[in-house]
Amino acid sequence: MKTVILGSGNVATILGKALSEVGYDIAQVWSRNKKHAESLATVFQAQPIDDLKQIDPTADLYIIAVSDDGIQTLLSQINPYKGIVVHTSGSTPMDIFKNKFSRYGVFYPFQTFSKEREISFKEIPILLESSDHKTLSVLKDIASSISTNVQECSSDQRKALHIAAVFACNFTNHLYVIAKKLLEAHKLDFDLLRPLIAETALKVQESNPEQVQTGPAIRKDFTIIDSHLELLKEQPELLTLYRLLSDRIIASASEN
Amino acid sequence: MKTVILGSGNVATILGKALSEVGYDIAQVWSRNKKHAESLATVFQAQPIDDLKQIDPTADLYIIAVSDDGIQTLLSQINPYKGIVVHTSGSTPMDIFKNKFSRYGVFYPFQTFSKEREISFKEIPILLESSDHKTLSVLKDIASSISTNVQECSSDQRKALHIAAVFACNFTNHLYVIAKKLLEAHKLDFDLLRPLIAETALKVQESNPEQVQTGPAIRKDFTIIDSHLELLKEQPELLTLYRLLSDRIIASASEN
Repeated sequence: MKTVILGSGNVATILGKALSEVGYDIAQVWSRNKKHAESLATVFQAQPIDDLKQIDPTADLYIIAVSDDGIQTLLSQINPYKGIVVHTSGSTPMDIFKNKFSRYGVFYPFQTFSKEREISFKEIPILLESSDHKTLSVLKDIASSISTNVQECSSDQRKALHIAAVFACNFTNHLYVIAKKLLEAHKLDFDLLRPLIAETALKVQESNPEQVQTGPAIRKDFTIIDSHLELLKEQPELLTLYRLLSDRIIASASEN
Repeated sequence: MKTVILGSGNVATILGKALSEVGYDIAQVWSRNKKHAESLATVFQAQPIDDLKQIDPTADLYIIAVSDDGIQTLLSQINPYKGIVVHTSGSTPMDIFKNKFSRYGVFYPFQTFSKEREISFKEIPILLESSDHKTLSVLKDIASSISTNVQECSSDQRKALHIAAVFACNFTNHLYVIAKKLLEAHKLDFDLLRPLIAETALKVQESNPEQVQTGPAIRKDFTIIDSHLELLKEQPELLTLYRLLSDRIIASASEN
């Protein structure tokens, strides 16, 4: 399958590499930034382009892996192709392709990607949505060649998944930031927390999070909760956050 | 070293096993519940007791691994021993031992323990505080025999560490619960989130969390943030939480 990748960020890079490794022909890499296009195209021995007019109109698959805002702009500038056009976004509905293309879909790898870490695609869920059954079947074949976890997912479901990911990944990371600052204020190193953070995530790989909740709130240990609130009284945002999350955990303790 | 363990919960069990494995003589296991004492004592071929009067007064080390509230009650009921007495709590100050014992301290393994998962002690930080240098040196030897990460830590620091752990572990787990519920409302399985949760924790093992923050808030992608707030409008607590955490992340984006 002749494939064109539009974008040169984390998703474009990691997805392109995974496809290339199982034999897909990445023919072109487009980026508005020529150097970025060149740097990624080299990996696949593909043609680097920075002009949308140079895009090969005979490709079988066009993967748009740019920012959410970028998708809309890009679509207004490219020609309608016969091949399948997909985007890789969690938040953009599939309908964005509706009036311009005949075969289209969403190819959403559900993971947090960063330049700091290489990760294997195999266990990353890929969520698919498609204009028609035939296209879906092609996308399923492609996704299954690089991941063992491929599922269909509507635009509404994908949106729910994205917001869930904001809580479980983006907000969680910010809690790590808060914890780090609390330690630094007492000359303690973040290294102390790393094993705890790893274990907290590992625990829910086999169990459900409701079943492994620990800490003062689930034990309704108000002596400790009050002493923590006292410690946070100079930091009103953290105080609100501590209270809100503890109250929810206490309420969940009564449910079980 | 003849050791008595008071308590039969997760910390008592995991700490006792780790000490026993490197050759410490666990002579007695006390629990208010005879069956619990018996079940844990069997592991060490120790004597199970449920009467505090039966505690061997000639032991070298007494490890009090009961709940925070339980420590105070227990101390009022036991005799003063010549051996070293420690508790394993993050939140109880060391001073609780002051007027009754001559050699005492805190032996705080900093990790989340659950019956669901066996974990190796080696990488668990152990935080020590002690009544005197000689006792500290003994506690350091003990801790170093089961962990590669042993540090001194004052009662104030331990308290800061505990509150940091509430954010990075207990509250994080609750964010997993919230995410799970958001998925369930759209008939999506929590399995989809598990790789993301694992990767989020793995990313901060090598990097600092400020450096690997992802998501709409750090990108200041207000289109997505607004669409998420719209989705959460029927759930005022989640709305507040989403807004508070996003605002903090947006503010941190401006700092960097």
